[in-house]
Amino acid sequence: MLVVMQHDASGDEIQRVVDTIEELGYEARPMPGKQRTAVGLVGNDGRVDASRLAALPGVKEIIHVTQPYKQVSREWKEESTVVRLPGGLRIGGNEVVVIAGPCSVESEEQIIQTARSVRASGAAMLRGGAFKPRSSPYSFQGLGEEGLKLLAKAREETGLLVVTEAMDAEGVDLVTQYADVIQIGARNMQNSSLLKRAGRAGKPVLLKRGIAATITELLLSAEYLLAEGNHDVILCERGVRGFDNATRNVFDLAAITVVHGLSHLPIIADPSHATGWRDKVTPMARAAVAAGADGVMVEVHQQPDRALSDGAQSLYPEQFAELMREIRVIAEAIGRVVAEPLPAVSA
Amino acid sequence: MLVVMQHDASGDEIQRVVDTIEELGYEARPMPGKQRTAVGLVGNDGRVDASRLAALPGVKEIIHVTQPYKQVSREWKEESTVVRLPGGLRIGGNEVVVIAGPCSVESEEQIIQTARSVRASGAAMLRGGAFKPRSSPYSFQGLGEEGLKLLAKAREETGLLVVTEAMDAEGVDLVTQYADVIQIGARNMQNSSLLKRAGRAGKPVLLKRGIAATITELLLSAEYLLAEGNHDVILCERGVRGFDNATRNVFDLAAITVVHGLSHLPIIADPSHATGWRDKVTPMARAAVAAGADGVMVEVHQQPDRALSDGAQSLYPEQFAELMREIRVIAEAIGRVVAEPLPAVSA
Amino acid sequence: MLVVMQHDASGDEIQRVVDTIEELGYEARPMPGKQRTAVGLVGNDGRVDASRLAALPGVKEIIHVTQPYKQVSREWKEESTVVRLPGGLRIGGNEVVVIAGPCSVESEEQIIQTARSVRASGAAMLRGGAFKPRSSPYSFQGLGEEGLKLLAKAREETGLLVVTEAMDAEGVDLVTQYADVIQIGARNMQNSSLLKRAGRAGKPVLLKRGIAATITELLLSAEYLLAEGNHDVILCERGVRGFDNATRNVFDLAAITVVHGLSHLPIIADPSHATGWRDKVTPMARAAVAAGADGVMVEVHQQPDRALSDGAQSLYPEQFAELMREIRVIAEAIGRVVAEPLPAVSA
Amino acid sequence: MLVVMQHDASGDEIQRVVDTIEELGYEARPMPGKQRTAVGLVGNDGRVDASRLAALPGVKEIIHVTQPYKQVSREWKEESTVVRLPGGLRIGGNEVVVIAGPCSVESEEQIIQTARSVRASGAAMLRGGAFKPRSSPYSFQGLGEEGLKLLAKAREETGLLVVTEAMDAEGVDLVTQYADVIQIGARNMQNSSLLKRAGRAGKPVLLKRGIAATITELLLSAEYLLAEGNHDVILCERGVRGFDNATRNVFDLAAITVVHGLSHLPIIADPSHATGWRDKVTPMARAAVAAGADGVMVEVHQQPDRALSDGAQSLYPEQFAELMREIRVIAEAIGRVVAEPLPAVSA
Repeated sequence: MLVVMQHDASGDEIQRVVDTIEELGYEARPMPGKQRTAVGLVGNDGRVDASRLAALPGVKEIIHVTQPYKQVSREWKEESTVVRLPGGLRIGGNEVVVIAGPCSVESEEQIIQTARSVRASGAAMLRGGAFKPRSSPYSFQGLGEEGLKLLAKAREETGLLVVTEAMDAEGVDLVTQYADVIQIGARNMQNSSLLKRAGRAGKPVLLKRGIAATITELLLSAEYLLAEGNHDVILCERGVRGFDNATRNVFDLAAITVVHGLSHLPIIADPSHATGWRDKVTPMARAAVAAGADGVMVEVHQQPDRALSDGAQSLYPEQFAELMREIRVIAEAIGRVVAEPLPAVSA
Repeated sequence: MLVVMQHDASGDEIQRVVDTIEELGYEARPMPGKQRTAVGLVGNDGRVDASRLAALPGVKEIIHVTQPYKQVSREWKEESTVVRLPGGLRIGGNEVVVIAGPCSVESEEQIIQTARSVRASGAAMLRGGAFKPRSSPYSFQGLGEEGLKLLAKAREETGLLVVTEAMDAEGVDLVTQYADVIQIGARNMQNSSLLKRAGRAGKPVLLKRGIAATITELLLSAEYLLAEGNHDVILCERGVRGFDNATRNVFDLAAITVVHGLSHLPIIADPSHATGWRDKVTPMARAAVAAGADGVMVEVHQQPDRALSDGAQSLYPEQFAELMREIRVIAEAIGRVVAEPLPAVSA
Repeated sequence: MLVVMQHDASGDEIQRVVDTIEELGYEARPMPGKQRTAVGLVGNDGRVDASRLAALPGVKEIIHVTQPYKQVSREWKEESTVVRLPGGLRIGGNEVVVIAGPCSVESEEQIIQTARSVRASGAAMLRGGAFKPRSSPYSFQGLGEEGLKLLAKAREETGLLVVTEAMDAEGVDLVTQYADVIQIGARNMQNSSLLKRAGRAGKPVLLKRGIAATITELLLSAEYLLAEGNHDVILCERGVRGFDNATRNVFDLAAITVVHGLSHLPIIADPSHATGWRDKVTPMARAAVAAGADGVMVEVHQQPDRALSDGAQSLYPEQFAELMREIRVIAEAIGRVVAEPLPAVSA
Repeated sequence: MLVVMQHDASGDEIQRVVDTIEELGYEARPMPGKQRTAVGLVGNDGRVDASRLAALPGVKEIIHVTQPYKQVSREWKEESTVVRLPGGLRIGGNEVVVIAGPCSVESEEQIIQTARSVRASGAAMLRGGAFKPRSSPYSFQGLGEEGLKLLAKAREETGLLVVTEAMDAEGVDLVTQYADVIQIGARNMQNSSLLKRAGRAGKPVLLKRGIAATITELLLSAEYLLAEGNHDVILCERGVRGFDNATRNVFDLAAITVVHGLSHLPIIADPSHATGWRDKVTPMARAAVAAGADGVMVEVHQQPDRALSDGAQSLYPEQFAELMREIRVIAEAIGRVVAEPLPAVSA
């Protein structure tokens, strides 16, 4: 951390900064320059509250040299994390994992049919919301535990592993019971109570980037999970808020390479929520794989115009099949391979 | 709702839109134009999931004419809501309510001293976090219930009403027990589980705008509270995410007039979190009152350079006193008056 | 255009809207609904100034059904535009055109060497700034006409076609004289004087998206060029301003599919300016091709650490060669092919 | 400037950074830390192209300690600049200057009537566009020189000084001839050719912040003017692009205090373009004055529903009169005074 002094800061003001740094338990190193003095704080400043120093008289600015997160960083752990799922499926290695399914679980017929269909095209995991975070209290809020049971049934019939969202403490307990991966949604990325609970659940967590979260904030939220002892964390870029309503969000694909540089955690991409429109999902899913994503999560519905939520961004099954063909070639072009689905348990 | 068809949409495609609208239980009204046809959906479309229509072939765009919220809207209830607090303090009427206090409750001495000091300058309510939502798991997370007890003690000694944040179901129960107003923070604005719980707590709620929430989303989150039967809701503009790091956030003061136009709910402003820097808090607090805010919430600390959080944006007590003098005059310039603090209970 | 009335608008207020629409020369069609009346304006509303109607008493909102641009839209011209360049190079067809070169032309040796190197790897066009738009007056502003001469010389020696930026009327005249494509930079996307001049220059124009321009604004700026009679326009996505400084800009790759849907004009992508960091350029260039871009423009420098501008985002020649190999495979995966460079004129 | 090395940077890599800094003519000061080494560049780094250092192997990040601008900064010149206009009107002192008038000059009757009306209410300057930057080529583009003549006539009849926009070199020459202050619009804030020309025009310049410009970029554009010898520069906050379409732009009022901290130049605010809606202009104009703006620029039209542009955001004359009454009291509340208009020349 570097405390930059105003150009007319007095010797006393500089000394007070030095004293405060030492009082905080760190070593201070003043560096007089031609225009102004800066005072370096030596050591990992991740836990220092800069506000205390920024408030001192004569201080112009605080500059962080060290990132505020720790266990999620690649400096802490150099080799990439590979999250191992039941049956040997892995996220974060050389394979690109495709997760597909409807926005919401609506009925047994719907989820089983969709699961079979996406598996036939090559998806390795099934998505589908049982607890739905909705902006409006009047929108469909999901089937709850009944939806979780249907997901588990679909897994049994198809072998697809299941990821689904939890929105509160009770939800975490239920999702842990039925699913393979617990999803924390974008709206809850900074819900620290939920993060702590999920961090203790004993199941891998898929953490979606908040709609206006910086990469640093995403990694700090992941740090909550690792700090609770859960190292099986998968991040997900799903679009950030922008100024143009031509798409639902702005798909920040560069976040994939940024995360791969800063952290050892795997990161997948969700082009469905990122764009909001079916005709944009396929090109953006291809782009995500080309950019190096460790997986893609895509909404697919047997009858999008009958969907209870997100119909406009759900692919038709045949569109998903075509997408799978394209991303297999793109994965190969960059030396990777699309993960194969596991055999069905009941098979 | 208006379903705009592509210019080359066929008669069959238009008919399918009409049929779907009728199937949803609404009346459809096709309007052929020179370039394209649009199909109107007559009736309140707040509960219709547009995705289902947007997914139909030949559809170009869905345009909402009606807002998706209901009970929070001024069309639902024309007269402004006045939230009545214990002792007769009111938010949403002609008075401008000033809420002041530290970012976090740190100790008995700190909170009692600060409460006395801000009351002496004219604040009517005390703020102070007992449960702190922090981006990093390593930052100070608050004193918990101990902090709530200290806030209650400060109220007893000074007569200042207390507002403090709850972050989960247990937190709502505890805050309800000790405080006068439950705060839902920006990070939890779309935490629907928390909103539902707070909506049933039987205490007024201060709902802060999420860091990238549109006004519509803010009002929809408030709708969650009203839908649970809680009509005592106060909104709060506290800065939104912008592209320039010159300030912590962008203080969107026009949101105050926008909310006053769309909704009957009162809205206050928090210039401390909006700007992040002490020297910007005073001018922005003045601006908020001039813009018509129903109150301002300001961070004040006896020793900002000792604060465990947000020291850089906390006013010194004498700065707060000066601010109070200025906003009294500004309130009068627009025909309002700054609310007087209540007498201390113990007095 | 739809003029939505307030729910309590009077019959007189509705009539005044009808009268104003008719006075503007359009047909008005009132549509009474359950909650409010809307008045449709029949016909292409692209040229109507909505402000005039929005100002009328009782009006709640103006909703545009028709886009404000005309000649650039796919409804105006359904088949995709293919811009034909000297020697038969085409942008907008099945081929993906790669443009490479340094940020600025610095010296004869630098530009000739770089041109040879990128041509050897497969680039078809050469980029390089002679007039540099810089945020600071103290930054290197380019070699001016001398730089243009060097670009022309590089074309002669390598056969690479040349694209370079013009910043004012004199610049347009000079660039027209030496280059094959005139670039309008992001900072000047809404410089209408410059757009009009470039529209009359008789050379194809590469129009970069402004740093915070919506797609609609980008297309309207292109409309300035077409309105002057220049139909050879190539658009370019180069990143938009975001809230996170992890990358220089946010690369909005979905803009490519949005533009392809709304307009017949070709669009290329510039991952160098979009990300600002060399290690992100390659994955993002691959992603752009996978997303369907009609070309990519990449900064390459023989010695990035000696570059007078943008060194941090310039690829080393060997990195560019590797990128070319990867995007050839990705182009094929989606049924396209990377355009071959033309033979050198002097060959 | 601080060059932060990666934690595993080698001694050779650190030495190369040191050598490069010295080669650039600066002193290098390596600072080994516990986690990583940083290398300080001693001296004003405003003119150093950081890209060259960022490109070196082992470099993690470049951190700027010194701002890239110079003459506009308060460190360069401590006392606030007061721009002196003809007749003794001053911008940047204790007075708050009100500029009012229509978006566009439309006719002699319109501009003279409006000028008389706003002067009667207390405006000191007249605004009105003769050259209009429009997003669409089909929108009204202004009366050109004829409009400038009408503005000069209005000045003669009312004593109001005139500010109007120039969009290119010829425009600067014409505006210089007729107006008192040359306006550079938001779309042209980074049009460096135009800035250089305006910097040599010999008249004060009103420089509006670009729609997505950071404060640093705004100050750098102002630096272009000062670098050409023009020190009479007035900045203007007019709203920045945001994610919510509830208002036309986000009015970033904190920019006023930020600019007052970093620069000696005066800054005014334009609530009309910032909000886009008449009912928001008055509260936001009051807020701007309360925030410490050195002036406000407000659109007023005799008949907003007849305006050729921006009718929805233009105040009615009686609304403007009421606004003047309110801001006089607010100015006094913070120890300032609204500037009186000058006597008419013809009087």
